[in-house]
Amino acid sequence: MKIIVLKFGGTSVGSTDRIKKVANIIISFIKKKYKVIVTSSAMSGVTNDLVKKSKSISNEFIPEEYDVLVSSGEQMSCSLIAGRLNHLGYKSRSWMGWQIPILTEGRHSSSRIEKIYKKNIIKYLESGGIPIVAGFQGINSANRITTIGRGGTDASAIMLSRFFNAIKCIIYTDVDGVYTTDPNTITKAKKIKVISYEEMLEMASLGAKVMQPHSIQDARLNRIDIDVRSSFKKSLGTLITKRKNIVSNKIIRGVSFTKNDAKVTLIGVKDKPGIAAAIFEPLYKNSINVDMVVQNISSNGRETDLTFTIKSENLSKTEKLLKKNKKISFRKIIVDNKVSKVSIIGVGMITTPGVTYRMFNALAKKNINIIVISTSEIKISVLVNRKNINKAISALHKEFKLEN
Amino acid sequence: MKIIVLKFGGTSVGSTDRIKKVANIIISFIKKKYKVIVTSSAMSGVTNDLVKKSKSISNEFIPEEYDVLVSSGEQMSCSLIAGRLNHLGYKSRSWMGWQIPILTEGRHSSSRIEKIYKKNIIKYLESGGIPIVAGFQGINSANRITTIGRGGTDASAIMLSRFFNAIKCIIYTDVDGVYTTDPNTITKAKKIKVISYEEMLEMASLGAKVMQPHSIQDARLNRIDIDVRSSFKKSLGTLITKRKNIVSNKIIRGVSFTKNDAKVTLIGVKDKPGIAAAIFEPLYKNSINVDMVVQNISSNGRETDLTFTIKSENLSKTEKLLKKNKKISFRKIIVDNKVSKVSIIGVGMITTPGVTYRMFNALAKKNINIIVISTSEIKISVLVNRKNINKAISALHKEFKLEN
Repeated sequence: MKIIVLKFGGTSVGSTDRIKKVANIIISFIKKKYKVIVTSSAMSGVTNDLVKKSKSISNEFIPEEYDVLVSSGEQMSCSLIAGRLNHLGYKSRSWMGWQIPILTEGRHSSSRIEKIYKKNIIKYLESGGIPIVAGFQGINSANRITTIGRGGTDASAIMLSRFFNAIKCIIYTDVDGVYTTDPNTITKAKKIKVISYEEMLEMASLGAKVMQPHSIQDARLNRIDIDVRSSFKKSLGTLITKRKNIVSNKIIRGVSFTKNDAKVTLIGVKDKPGIAAAIFEPLYKNSINVDMVVQNISSNGRETDLTFTIKSENLSKTEKLLKKNKKISFRKIIVDNKVSKVSIIGVGMITTPGVTYRMFNALAKKNINIIVISTSEIKISVLVNRKNINKAISALHKEFKLEN
Repeated sequence: MKIIVLKFGGTSVGSTDRIKKVANIIISFIKKKYKVIVTSSAMSGVTNDLVKKSKSISNEFIPEEYDVLVSSGEQMSCSLIAGRLNHLGYKSRSWMGWQIPILTEGRHSSSRIEKIYKKNIIKYLESGGIPIVAGFQGINSANRITTIGRGGTDASAIMLSRFFNAIKCIIYTDVDGVYTTDPNTITKAKKIKVISYEEMLEMASLGAKVMQPHSIQDARLNRIDIDVRSSFKKSLGTLITKRKNIVSNKIIRGVSFTKNDAKVTLIGVKDKPGIAAAIFEPLYKNSINVDMVVQNISSNGRETDLTFTIKSENLSKTEKLLKKNKKISFRKIIVDNKVSKVSIIGVGMITTPGVTYRMFNALAKKNINIIVISTSEIKISVLVNRKNINKAISALHKEFKLEN
């Protein structure tokens, strides 16, 4: 069987009119002789409304019932899609997690799919039916509804693709693909035709709108090709696949950035083993994510300067936590709440020397001062003054010929 | 186990604030050492919204998916109730039809509950839990969601009471009981403390707001006492029970009425066997409900006059159907769209002579002309000119001492 998995996100099924369009997209694949498995999110706004209701009932709504509550959203959207397909003369039905069943590892609110029983769906596909599988939900071994946390319906789509050996997984969303950088910031941004899982993961700041990193990681582990498209436009989207499938002369795939960063520098930290852990422990416990970290070599062997970045919104809390941290001592704390991070990403840099030089040189030519640098195998990030961020993105986008 | 079943209708759970109040009602029974089984409808407005969505998808939305769609409403309300009880420190969880399971006879959109498997719920009750059972839904033998038609969650409550041998079934709704007549029409209307199933069934025009006739019939067949109360007020409601439980000196229990009736008289109908069936067949096929029917004795043995009543809104269609009906012939058709029906109801009339006379006399004293009469064992109905209806209700309400 030539199975294809189609996933529709919230805005794709945001109204009954949109659901009618989704039905037409599904039918276009049936006409191409594919066996189609569909999975859908709740209609946009529905899940948020349910979450709001749960919060007004309790500020610590019990996770078991939270899952029952929010999973009702997918029950609606999937029955409406199946209803529309029947209306148009196609055999289709909705499948809830418990009807397939989709077994999760058991935790509530943030479960992961462990197994999808194939028999019922295969039989249904063989009979010519189009199964509309409720995304974001499964059941655990106690026969209770469990929702899938990070990734949600994207994760359902990836797992359906894996268990049914789908030849392709198409994610329909409200953006029409992954761009070389944010098109709203840089008008010359181009849609990327093919991108590797690894690059996509590093593009998080741009890609998060497209797909949850967790689901990209699942796709990578299971070697599932993902096609990200818009359900609103007819244009081709972006294919996320393994590196060796990519034929491209581009060294850099894209320029990502985060605007609201803050930099914290601790001057004259008493250096001793475990000092970094002692600094970051209270931040971690308060869910403050530390991004770039730079530690200068201590000149006298007893003191060091440590710089790191966090989200702007966490700055005041971070300052407080550092000042009351009794496990560390330092002479001075310097903060800068007006910095931004820009990164270039591409697997090509592994085999191409001089990328770092080209990046720094392009920024220098525009008089952009680099505050912090951090590098990974396929990504180089620099921290710049926030006022320079758009100029920096533009310069790098041009330098690495992403406009063509 | 001292099991009690509590049912909450749509307005009772119409907002998260209302759901908080519902949780408090449930807890009041737990404190009285009852084992409580709760069943709830969807929050008011939710089901209507879902039905509207289904109609915008298809004017003939497939019943299988309609059931999946609308049953999501109860999934929400029940999880919110269970969430609230947990918030207040009580052990509670929602139970969907498929989790118990509640087995229906199989039809979609208008199924009936065939069996409720008790094991899971009994075990849960024994562990001190408060099960919140989704009303209006079950599954069929094909493991698909089926909703219960007439009676909806009322039917769920009755069947839960039956299968779990509940000592009482309390229906919380937006009215605080059954009244001797409509309190909005006759301010002297009194709440009825106890009423028999049969009287309640005949009070349909008043009682329909309280409970679906179908569910009253189910309760009657299973001898289940039903207590109808308001979840908004603290006052006692109305107990619906078997006749022999009722100690009352009232001959008449209530005065019911329908305002928008229309009368159709066919003059000079060619009389022959099967003529009544021939007249009513096309009406039945067009879902036009015929209420009162009176046939005058044919004086010459060949012709007859036939009078019947229908809802006003069906009058023009009925006229058309009668005129194009080739199986019948008549000389003239007379219609009156300004009539109303008033009825007195009470099991007391079976053993009390003179009720009919007292009714007619009370109306005569007010100069109210009786157009059509029809009687059953525990109910006498008369058709009057619509302009007289309130006067008629008032006269009968007084005549049979319902004001005291």
